Amino acid sequence: MDNIIVQKYGGTSVATPERIKNVAGRIINLKRAGKNIVVVVSAMGDSTDDLIDLAHQITPDPPSRELDMLLSTGEQVSIALLAMAIESMGEDVISLTAAQVGIHTDNIHTRARIVDIDTERILAELKRGRIVIVAGFQGVNEFNDITTLGRGGSDTTAVALASVLKAEMCEILTDVEGVYTSDPRIVFNAKKLDTITYEEMLELATLGAKVLHPRSVELAWQYDVPLMVRSSFNEKEGTIVTNMKLENERVVSGVACDKNVAKASVYGIPSRPGVAYRIFSALADKGIDVDMIVQNMTREGKTDISFTIAKENLGETREVLKKVSEELGSDGVNFEDGLAKVSIVGAGMINHPGVAAKMFEALYELDINIELITTSDIKVSCLVREDRAEEAVRKLHSVFELENI
Amino acid sequence: MDNIIVQKYGGTSVATPERIKNVAGRIINLKRAGKNIVVVVSAMGDSTDDLIDLAHQITPDPPSRELDMLLSTGEQVSIALLAMAIESMGEDVISLTAAQVGIHTDNIHTRARIVDIDTERILAELKRGRIVIVAGFQGVNEFNDITTLGRGGSDTTAVALASVLKAEMCEILTDVEGVYTSDPRIVFNAKKLDTITYEEMLELATLGAKVLHPRSVELAWQYDVPLMVRSSFNEKEGTIVTNMKLENERVVSGVACDKNVAKASVYGIPSRPGVAYRIFSALADKGIDVDMIVQNMTREGKTDISFTIAKENLGETREVLKKVSEELGSDGVNFEDGLAKVSIVGAGMINHPGVAAKMFEALYELDINIELITTSDIKVSCLVREDRAEEAVRKLHSVFELENI
Repeated sequence: MDNIIVQKYGGTSVATPERIKNVAGRIINLKRAGKNIVVVVSAMGDSTDDLIDLAHQITPDPPSRELDMLLSTGEQVSIALLAMAIESMGEDVISLTAAQVGIHTDNIHTRARIVDIDTERILAELKRGRIVIVAGFQGVNEFNDITTLGRGGSDTTAVALASVLKAEMCEILTDVEGVYTSDPRIVFNAKKLDTITYEEMLELATLGAKVLHPRSVELAWQYDVPLMVRSSFNEKEGTIVTNMKLENERVVSGVACDKNVAKASVYGIPSRPGVAYRIFSALADKGIDVDMIVQNMTREGKTDISFTIAKENLGETREVLKKVSEELGSDGVNFEDGLAKVSIVGAGMINHPGVAAKMFEALYELDINIELITTSDIKVSCLVREDRAEEAVRKLHSVFELENI
Repeated sequence: MDNIIVQKYGGTSVATPERIKNVAGRIINLKRAGKNIVVVVSAMGDSTDDLIDLAHQITPDPPSRELDMLLSTGEQVSIALLAMAIESMGEDVISLTAAQVGIHTDNIHTRARIVDIDTERILAELKRGRIVIVAGFQGVNEFNDITTLGRGGSDTTAVALASVLKAEMCEILTDVEGVYTSDPRIVFNAKKLDTITYEEMLELATLGAKVLHPRSVELAWQYDVPLMVRSSFNEKEGTIVTNMKLENERVVSGVACDKNVAKASVYGIPSRPGVAYRIFSALADKGIDVDMIVQNMTREGKTDISFTIAKENLGETREVLKKVSEELGSDGVNFEDGLAKVSIVGAGMINHPGVAAKMFEALYELDINIELITTSDIKVSCLVREDRAEEAVRKLHSVFELENI
């Protein structure tokens, strides 16, 4: 089927009945312009948090299968309401849960991965001339149990649907107008980018730019899904994320800041093969994502390993490391939060040496201490004290002249 | 499988996290006493009404398929929370939606009827030693769309499950301690009945006693499901509803009062075959339940038909009758609300003539006008002004000496 557009509206865009009606009007305009439309929606506003609160009033540690059963109702409410709004405005529409679509996932509750998606029912409904509203963030496993996809779940649902449906565009509608050179709340003169590469977007997404979840960008890149980030409150063109290499590649496209960072260190581990494996597989077993990793050789055949994690995983990480560190016979562990990761990202960096040095110089000028450094082909990240992070971002935005991009 | 108990907890019993934990404790006690337990729960407190309000903020007339999609989330929330509570207290448990169980219904959204129920998954989970929590009020139709069962839906789910699982008892746990000779809020000295027949309960349920929905009683009667109505707040024995004929059958077992009544009349209909069929099939097509029906022959080959409906169906009934009455060439229609139906019910009535006369006499003594009368083998119902209904109930309770039952 041609002319398929997948749109994804986040929780803010459907937070109230009034906003749901606005979104409905916008979808209808697009439909009347001749498009076949599949819409993915998140739960209304803070309703997912409200459900989590409710679960925590029952037990501090709710079983993950039942948590998914509970949380998936949030999206089911918003798809029903959005379908009602569209039907009341005179367009034919149907809402579908993930189980009804056939969004099949693995069995890892609360952070399931999509395995495959049936297109039969969606295509049949589109052929009947209906707008199809799909619940984001959820799936169904081999036991017919409801799963949820975890963070960035609705973006991932949208991109996966756009891929299997061969949509001409996957639009992520959100409360910002696109991807900016930095967070406009931190950098006053941050600029909106017209285009950005998947790779840059992936680094920015990973770095906490929060516009798009890295999982969804990765998926879009892998399956070459054309992606646009745009505002749900106005009709302005947003930022297109593509594979296209630009003629004049920008050296640095953005400065990102992630404040949700804690650091964990294991000291004095007897250095032998498999040490890193032991630590990080134990963390992976608990589903804890590890970000920056630094290992140094120290004296007397002992080594230190430091890494960063999301703040909310600090408690669980502490438990895991206590056990593993004893097994490894290390000298001790240490934890720190109140940290932030400041990064510069740009696909052109690879051809321009000295970019990292320029970043370190800028931080040195501000007298900001760097706790960890990691780099890739297209980014440099520095871990700094959280209370100095915004200064650092503004300085880097200015040093790399992003206000003139 | 032996020793299966099906319990149903209504919305009041699971209205708060605290109450959910109480219910969980009670279920666990029963489990540890060696029973295999299937629990049906309704949505928490007023949450169904809240969802309906939300829908009405979108559109005054939400499409019924999407309304079912929306409303079914209420029960999904409570099954997840109850399962969390039970698991946190150390028992193995699983929650299942109607789609996961396989509660198959027809396609009439918002008032679907159960067609059949798969027992495979429930029995498999019970065999694993798990307590099974099932979402009440909902089903799934042949298109895999979610349906809801309408009023009394959760009771009906419980009885239907008890039937297919061949449960030894279906317990309806509610905010009253059983079935009373009359509404204790109206009649101060109303008594709790130890047993009642399906037939009596059916009449009482239909008459607005609100303890059990008539659909569920009908179903229990049809499939001989042993039923108990009891309190969810204490462990007292409730009222058992059975097929057993009592040695000394009570003449009158209860006095009921239904205030949710409106009356509709069609005047001067040319009297020919099929007139009643035309009127009541048109109402049935809209799913409007008609209760008391009275037809009188009048002069010149014309007839009048009056009947009662639930107040909330008055608007729709008005529309249907306007059209049908024109087609039939009748002289006009009339509507009235502010009415109540007062009834006496008793399986022994059939062998005791003069019971109806005693009722009419009691109402005459209070100078209460009777607008319509209907009778069955085991009940007599009178339609009276709503503002006189409670007086009438108290008088009848006393005249038939129900305080000494």
